[in-house]
Amino acid sequence: MKILEDRIMSDGVVKDGGIIKVDSFLNHQMDISLINELGREFRRRFAGDGVTKILTIEASGIGIACITAQYFGVPVVFAKKCDSKNLDGDVYTSEVTSYTKGKDYTIRVAKKFLSPDDKILIIDDFLAKGKAFFGLKDIVQQAGATLCGVGICIEKGFQDGGKLIRSMGIHLESLAIIELDEDGGIKFAK
Amino acid sequence: MKILEDRIMSDGVVKDGGIIKVDSFLNHQMDISLINELGREFRRRFAGDGVTKILTIEASGIGIACITAQYFGVPVVFAKKCDSKNLDGDVYTSEVTSYTKGKDYTIRVAKKFLSPDDKILIIDDFLAKGKAFFGLKDIVQQAGATLCGVGICIEKGFQDGGKLIRSMGIHLESLAIIELDEDGGIKFAK
Repeated sequence: MKILEDRIMSDGVVKDGGIIKVDSFLNHQMDISLINELGREFRRRFAGDGVTKILTIEASGIGIACITAQYFGVPVVFAKKCDSKNLDGDVYTSEVTSYTKGKDYTIRVAKKFLSPDDKILIIDDFLAKGKAFFGLKDIVQQAGATLCGVGICIEKGFQDGGKLIRSMGIHLESLAIIELDEDGGIKFAK
Repeated sequence: MKILEDRIMSDGVVKDGGIIKVDSFLNHQMDISLINELGREFRRRFAGDGVTKILTIEASGIGIACITAQYFGVPVVFAKKCDSKNLDGDVYTSEVTSYTKGKDYTIRVAKKFLSPDDKILIIDDFLAKGKAFFGLKDIVQQAGATLCGVGICIEKGFQDGGKLIRSMGIHLESLAIIELDEDGGIKFAK
């Protein structure tokens, strides 16, 4: 998606270890006009799938999921990462390893918010090794819901999450796919 | 705000210790249509303040802030709670005690996203003792920015955060203010 690729080139920063900083517009400061364009594009790419709910994971996926949900007319559910007095009762859980944060954590979704009738679109800001996605997919399966697909703002094409997800026949749409070039810069996959 | 009070009465759950669960529409599952109404109301109450940026704190404030920001036409910045490889360089930090989670944590905002020219509206889902607010206010002050006010979805009127903030002359708007009645139920302050 050209508007996003252009913004990554103008405002993104590439750091060692394949970390892409887009914190000026996507996941610390958030350009809501841009994110509306992304949401509209997710709607276009998943039109006709009968999505009933958008599922994401805290924290940086939430804003993107909420803006996107407006184009689908459905609620958002976000998986929680931490223990909290506010999350009790029956929950689905799954274990996730964070590449960026270098640790494992448990994600949780209250069972009452996912049902076998739900058609779930997973939305997140980044896809690298796919750990967060597979945790969310596990929860969708536990609920007996249908996974319509996954919409990602920025996929790191030089890591294997995207290839793995596509090889499973899952409908994955990444609005920008970043590859590393020889001199440590970035380029976009076609 | 009647639409929010009605929803709290129909779908909210009061637990021991003054914890109000609104996870079916506000902070786990999110009713985006309702949150659009809240965002529109925040705009009405802070019209004319020249807000340049909305500041919130991860995780449950982010979605509400993003929807609200559409009505102001400004970006969102969310304070981060955890260490991350993605947050380096110059950051403002402040210490916050979480009532709900029963622990202290550090919040961080990259310095480049707040400037002395900014007029900041703080948005959050809940106000209880005001700990998160005072951490965010501290960061606004460190940046030399102007605090226009704070917009809260649900204030716990039986805790002292709201009184304290109002006593400082800060423009606080809470869309619903909950009081506890004698038999452990809830009612709304006028």
